[in-house]
Amino acid sequence: MADDSQRPLFIEEHARLHPVDLADKLLRAPDGERIKLLTHLPREIAAAALAELYEDQFEQVTKGLPEERIVELVGELPHDDAADILGEIEEERREELLEALPDEVSAPIEELLRYPEDTAGGIMSDRFITLTAKETVSDCQERLRKQVDRQRDDISYLYVVDVDQRLVGVVPLRELVFAMPESKVEDVMVRDVKFLQVDADQEAVAREFEDYGYLGLPVLDHAGKLVGVVSASEVFEVAQEEATEDMQLMVGLSGEERSSTPWPTSLSRRLPWLYVNLATAFIAAVVVACFEKTIDAIPALAIFLVVIAGQGGNAGMQTLTVIVRDLALGELEPGDGRKALFKEILLGTINGVAIGIVVGFIGWLWKGNPTIGLVAGVAMFLNMVAAAMFGVLIPFGLKALRIDPALASSILLTTVTDVAGNLLFLGLAAIVFAQL
Amino acid sequence: MADDSQRPLFIEEHARLHPVDLADKLLRAPDGERIKLLTHLPREIAAAALAELYEDQFEQVTKGLPEERIVELVGELPHDDAADILGEIEEERREELLEALPDEVSAPIEELLRYPEDTAGGIMSDRFITLTAKETVSDCQERLRKQVDRQRDDISYLYVVDVDQRLVGVVPLRELVFAMPESKVEDVMVRDVKFLQVDADQEAVAREFEDYGYLGLPVLDHAGKLVGVVSASEVFEVAQEEATEDMQLMVGLSGEERSSTPWPTSLSRRLPWLYVNLATAFIAAVVVACFEKTIDAIPALAIFLVVIAGQGGNAGMQTLTVIVRDLALGELEPGDGRKALFKEILLGTINGVAIGIVVGFIGWLWKGNPTIGLVAGVAMFLNMVAAAMFGVLIPFGLKALRIDPALASSILLTTVTDVAGNLLFLGLAAIVFAQL
Repeated sequence: MADDSQRPLFIEEHARLHPVDLADKLLRAPDGERIKLLTHLPREIAAAALAELYEDQFEQVTKGLPEERIVELVGELPHDDAADILGEIEEERREELLEALPDEVSAPIEELLRYPEDTAGGIMSDRFITLTAKETVSDCQERLRKQVDRQRDDISYLYVVDVDQRLVGVVPLRELVFAMPESKVEDVMVRDVKFLQVDADQEAVAREFEDYGYLGLPVLDHAGKLVGVVSASEVFEVAQEEATEDMQLMVGLSGEERSSTPWPTSLSRRLPWLYVNLATAFIAAVVVACFEKTIDAIPALAIFLVVIAGQGGNAGMQTLTVIVRDLALGELEPGDGRKALFKEILLGTINGVAIGIVVGFIGWLWKGNPTIGLVAGVAMFLNMVAAAMFGVLIPFGLKALRIDPALASSILLTTVTDVAGNLLFLGLAAIVFAQL
Repeated sequence: MADDSQRPLFIEEHARLHPVDLADKLLRAPDGERIKLLTHLPREIAAAALAELYEDQFEQVTKGLPEERIVELVGELPHDDAADILGEIEEERREELLEALPDEVSAPIEELLRYPEDTAGGIMSDRFITLTAKETVSDCQERLRKQVDRQRDDISYLYVVDVDQRLVGVVPLRELVFAMPESKVEDVMVRDVKFLQVDADQEAVAREFEDYGYLGLPVLDHAGKLVGVVSASEVFEVAQEEATEDMQLMVGLSGEERSSTPWPTSLSRRLPWLYVNLATAFIAAVVVACFEKTIDAIPALAIFLVVIAGQGGNAGMQTLTVIVRDLALGELEPGDGRKALFKEILLGTINGVAIGIVVGFIGWLWKGNPTIGLVAGVAMFLNMVAAAMFGVLIPFGLKALRIDPALASSILLTTVTDVAGNLLFLGLAAIVFAQL
C-alpha cells in the first residue's frame, strides 16, 4: 500500500512517462492504483495515455472511475480517438457519454462516428491547419505561432482551402521555413494535390502511403471539401492490423485476436471455425469410407493417406500465402490471376515430380511393392498440382466474390487437398489393384 | 514501334509520372522501350524511379543499358538506396560499380554497406540536416534556404550536434516556423532525444515507430555520434516486409517471395522445405505403420485418422498464428510464455471437449459402434489439447533458441499434431479393442 503522503511523488513520476508507457502501466496496474492514477493525474496526461490504448481496452481501464471523471477524460481525447473508443462500446452507453459531453465536443465526435471504421473517414483526424491562398507566408507564420498547440501537433502539411472549405492546394511545412516571408501562399503551394476520398478502404489507403511514402494525406468528401487528414503513423497501425488480419483470417481466426483477448471472446470466435473445419474434414473422411474395402484388402494404404493429404496441404499453403499477401499489398491485381496460376502450376508440377518420385520410391522400398509405390507417387504428384492450382484459385475466387481473399482460405485449401489426396490415392489404388 | 519523331513526347510524358508509377512502367515495359526510357529520361528522374524498385529488381530493369549510364544512375541514387541495391548483387559486380563511381559517391555508399541490412544502420539514410546549439533560429532559416533540396527532402526534424558530431538535441521543423527568430537553437531544441542504436534490429525499430508514432528517429553509433536517420516511410516498408516474412516463414517459404519472383528462385526456396515436411510426414506415417494390425482388424479406423490429425493441425494453427504475430509485434514478451500457455491450454481443453464430443457421436452413429466413437472422441480431445500446447511451446521455444519464432513453425506444429493424433487414436484403439 502506498502511503498517502507519497501520493504526489507517485503521481508525479507517472506524469513524466511517455503516454504509451503510461498506458501500459495502467493496463498492468492493480485496480486501486489504476483508479488513483486516472483520478489524480492531470487531465490531459491521463487522456493522452487513454488515447494510446486499443479501443476495446477503454472500458476495462476506466472501470471504477467516477462517471464525471470518465466524461472529462473522453472530452479531453482527440476527437478521432474518442470516436474510435465510442464506436467500440455499446450503443446505449455511447449515447449516455455523448449526452454528458458539451455540444462543442460531442458534435465533431458524432460527425466522425458516421464513417465506417475501416475507411479513410474512420481513421482520419479532424485536427488540421488551413490557410487561404492570398495570405502571405509571414502572416501565416504569425497566425500559427498563436494557434498551434506545440505539444500535440506534429504538423507536416498545411492545407489551402477556398471559402467553401474546398481543397485548392497544400503547403509543406518546410515551405514556411524556406519561402520568402513576403511570398503569397498561392505562390508556394502545391496545386496538384494527392488526396483520399472519405469512403476509401483503409487497406487501399495503406497501400498509397506505402507506395508513395507520404507523411499525411488530406481527406475530401464527395463535394471536394476538406473533412480530415490521415497521418502516416495512423496508417502504420492500420497496416499492421491488416497484416495481422490476413494471417488470422487464413487459419480461421477473427482477424482481431491478440494473446491478451479474454478467453471467452477467443473461444466464441474460434470454435465456429473449428466446426466448419470439422465438417470439411468429414468430407475427406467420407472419401476414405468409400474405399473401406480397398483399405481392408491392403491396410498399408492407410500409411500413405496422411502423407499425401498432408504434403499437398503444405505445398498449397506455400502458394496460398504468397497469393493472399500479394493481393493484400496490391502486388497482384485481380487481372493477374492467369499469370499467377501459370507460374504456380509450373512450380506445382516440378515440385510434384520431385516429391512424387521420393514418395514412390519410399512406398516401393518400405512395402516391397512397386505398385504401391507407383500409386502413391502418382497420387502425390497429382495432389501437388491440385494444391498449387487451388492455392491460386481460392483467393482469386474469394476476391472476385468481394470476400476478403484471406477468409478461411487455408481451411478451404486443406479441404481440397485432403479430399483430392484421398480420392486420387485410394481411387488409383482401387483401380490398379482390382486389375491385378 | 514508336516513331522516332515522337520520342521527345513519349519521354516527356513519362518524365511527369510519379517515380513509383514510372518504376511500375519500367517493370512492365518491353526491353526496347525500357532501355529507351532509361537512356533518355533526365538522370535524376530515372534514378528516382529506380530507387522505388525492390532491390532485387535493379539488375533486371537495367539489363541492356550501357555501363556508363548504369554507373551514372547509381551515382544519382540516394546513398541508402544505392547501398540497398549494391548489397543485393554479386560481390564482383558490386566492386566493379563502386570502382567506377567517383570517390565522393562511393565512400558514403561503402560506409552504409557495412551495416547488416536488417538493422537500423541498414535502413537508415545519411541525408539529414544538422544545427549547432549556439546558432539563432533566423541564422538557421537563412542557411537552410540555400542548403535544402526542396524537391527531395521531406524534413520533419533537424538535429543539433556538438563539434564531435555527437547528438545533443532535436529541433522539430515546426519550431523553425513558430519560434522567435532571435531565439537560440539550444533554447528551442528538445534535449531528451529518442534515438536508435545503429545495430538495433529492424523489427524492434518498427515497433518503436508503431508504438510512439515518430516521423523519424536519429541513429547513433556506439560513441554517440549521429550517423543517420530512419524515416517513418522507410520503417513502414520494413514493417510490411516483416509481416510478410512472418506469414511466409510459418509455412516454409523464404520470407521474401512475391508472385513476381522468377519461378526457378521460388522453386529453389520452396522445395527444400517440402522435403523437410515430407520427412516429418513420414514420421507420422511410421506411427500408422506400427498399428497396421489394428487397422487390418478395424479398417474403419482409417476414416478417422485424417479427421483427428487434420483437425488438431487446424486448431493448433489458430494458436500458433496468434502467438507468432504477438511475439513479432511485441505484444508478447519471452517472459509471458506461462500466461499464454495457460490461456491456450484452457481454450484447447474447452474446444477439445466441444469438438471431441461431436467426433465421438459421429463415430458412434456412423459406424454403429460406441467404442470407435469413444476412442475417436477421446483422441480428438487429447490432440486438441496437445495442439494448443505446442502452438505456444514451438514459437516460444524457437525464440528462446534465438531463432525467428515463425520459422517453419507450422511444419513443426503439424508434425506434432499428426504424430500425436495418429498415436493417440491408434494407440487407444489398440488397447481398447485388444481388451474387448
